[in-house]
Amino acid sequence: MPKGGLARVSHEAGKPWSREEFKERLINVGRSSYHDKHPFHVAMHEGTLSREQIRGWVANRYYYQISVPIKDAVILSKLPTREFRREWIQRIIDHDGNDEQEGGIEAWLRLGEVVGLSREEVLSEEHVVPAVRFSVDAYVNFAKEKPWLEAVASSLTELFSPILISERIKILERLYPWIDHSGLGYFRNRLTQAPRDTKFALHVVLDHCETLKEQQLAVEALQFKCDVLWAQLDAIEKAFPN
Amino acid sequence: MPKGGLARVSHEAGKPWSREEFKERLINVGRSSYHDKHPFHVAMHEGTLSREQIRGWVANRYYYQISVPIKDAVILSKLPTREFRREWIQRIIDHDGNDEQEGGIEAWLRLGEVVGLSREEVLSEEHVVPAVRFSVDAYVNFAKEKPWLEAVASSLTELFSPILISERIKILERLYPWIDHSGLGYFRNRLTQAPRDTKFALHVVLDHCETLKEQQLAVEALQFKCDVLWAQLDAIEKAFPN
Repeated sequence: MPKGGLARVSHEAGKPWSREEFKERLINVGRSSYHDKHPFHVAMHEGTLSREQIRGWVANRYYYQISVPIKDAVILSKLPTREFRREWIQRIIDHDGNDEQEGGIEAWLRLGEVVGLSREEVLSEEHVVPAVRFSVDAYVNFAKEKPWLEAVASSLTELFSPILISERIKILERLYPWIDHSGLGYFRNRLTQAPRDTKFALHVVLDHCETLKEQQLAVEALQFKCDVLWAQLDAIEKAFPN
Repeated sequence: MPKGGLARVSHEAGKPWSREEFKERLINVGRSSYHDKHPFHVAMHEGTLSREQIRGWVANRYYYQISVPIKDAVILSKLPTREFRREWIQRIIDHDGNDEQEGGIEAWLRLGEVVGLSREEVLSEEHVVPAVRFSVDAYVNFAKEKPWLEAVASSLTELFSPILISERIKILERLYPWIDHSGLGYFRNRLTQAPRDTKFALHVVLDHCETLKEQQLAVEALQFKCDVLWAQLDAIEKAFPN
C-alpha cells in the first residue's frame, strides 16, 4: 500500500473513532442542537408562555406522539434480529398502551385536557400546523428510507430528554399552577422509559457502527432528529406567538 | 342516472357483497386453495413422508417463521389506529417472545431439534431453497407495497389453519413416533393464537372493505397468500422428493 501523503491522510480519515470519541461526538450533537435550547422551550422554562401557547404546543406535539409508534414499527420491521425486536417493541407498547398500561398517547390526551384542550380537539388534529406535520413526517420517512442503524441512531435524542423532562415537570408544577398536576403523567413515565430505551439504542449504535462512515452517518442521523424537533418548535412558536 | 342496460349492469356489478357473501367468498378461497390440499401435506398426513422430507419441511418453513414478525411489523406500521396496533402487536410478541414466553420462533427451533436438525443448522438457513425464500419474501413485500387492508386480508389463511394444525398434531404423534412430542409446542400454541388473531383480522376486513373493489382486493389478497403457502410446499416437495 502506498505510504504517500494522500493515502496516509485517507487512511487516517478512514479510521473509525474510538468508542469514547464516537459517544462524545453523539453527545456533542445534543449539546449544540437539542431543542432544550430553542427559544420556545427556554420561554416555557422561564414560565412566560401563555395558556394559548401551552395549548398550541400540546396540540401540535400530539401529532409527534401518534407518529412515534408508527416510526418505531417501521424500525421494528427492519431490525436484523429477534433479540433486537424484543427490545424495540416495548417502545410501541409504551406509546400505544396495552391491557395493563394506558400508554403515552392516552397520557398525552390527558395532558391536553388539563391544559384546556378537549379530547376531540386534540384527536381532530385541527391545531396541527403544516410545518409540524412536515417535520414529523420527515422523521417517519427517515425510518422508512434509511438503513435500520441510522434509524436507530436518530432515536438517540432520548439521551438528552430525561434532564429536560425532569426540569419540565418541576417548571410546569411551579410556574404554570393552572395546569392540574394529575395531567403530567406522560412526562413522569418518560423519566424511566427514555433511559431504558436509550441504553439499548446507544449500545446498538456504538457496537454496530464499525466504519468511520457508519459512525458519521449515525451522528448525522442524530443531527437530523434534532433538526426535526427544532423545526417543530419553530413552527409552533410562529403559529402561537407571545 | 341512466337506467340503460350497461349502466344497470355496471351498477349491479358495483354493489358490494353482503357481509355474509363476502365472508363466504373469503372462505371459498381457503376451500379451493389452502395448502392443506397440497400433495406434500396430504402425504404428511398419510404418514408417508421420510425423515429427510420432514426435516426439509421444518428447515424451510423456518424461513417463513422468521419472516412473519417482520411482515407483521410492516403491517403494524401501516395500521390506521392505535387500537388496531394494540391488537396486531400481539402477533409479533407471539413469534418473537418476551420475558414471559419463549415465542414461536424459539418453539420452531425446538421442533427442528426433535426432528433431527441442530439449532445451528436451522439458524444458518442452509437448507432453505431459493423458491421458498422467494415466495416468503413476496409475502413480506406484499405487506410493504399494498394498502394495510389488503395486507391484513392476506393474513386470513389463519381462518383455515386451526383445523389443519389440530389434525397435524395428532398425525405427527401417531404416524411419526420418532418425533419427540415435546417438540410440538409450536403447533399447540397456534391452536389458541390463530383463532384469536383471525377473529380480529376477519372483523376488520369485513368492516372496512366498503366497496366491491375493496372486497375483491381482499379476496385476491387471500388468494395470493394461499399461493405463497402453496409455492413453498411445491419447492419443498421438489427439493426433498420421496
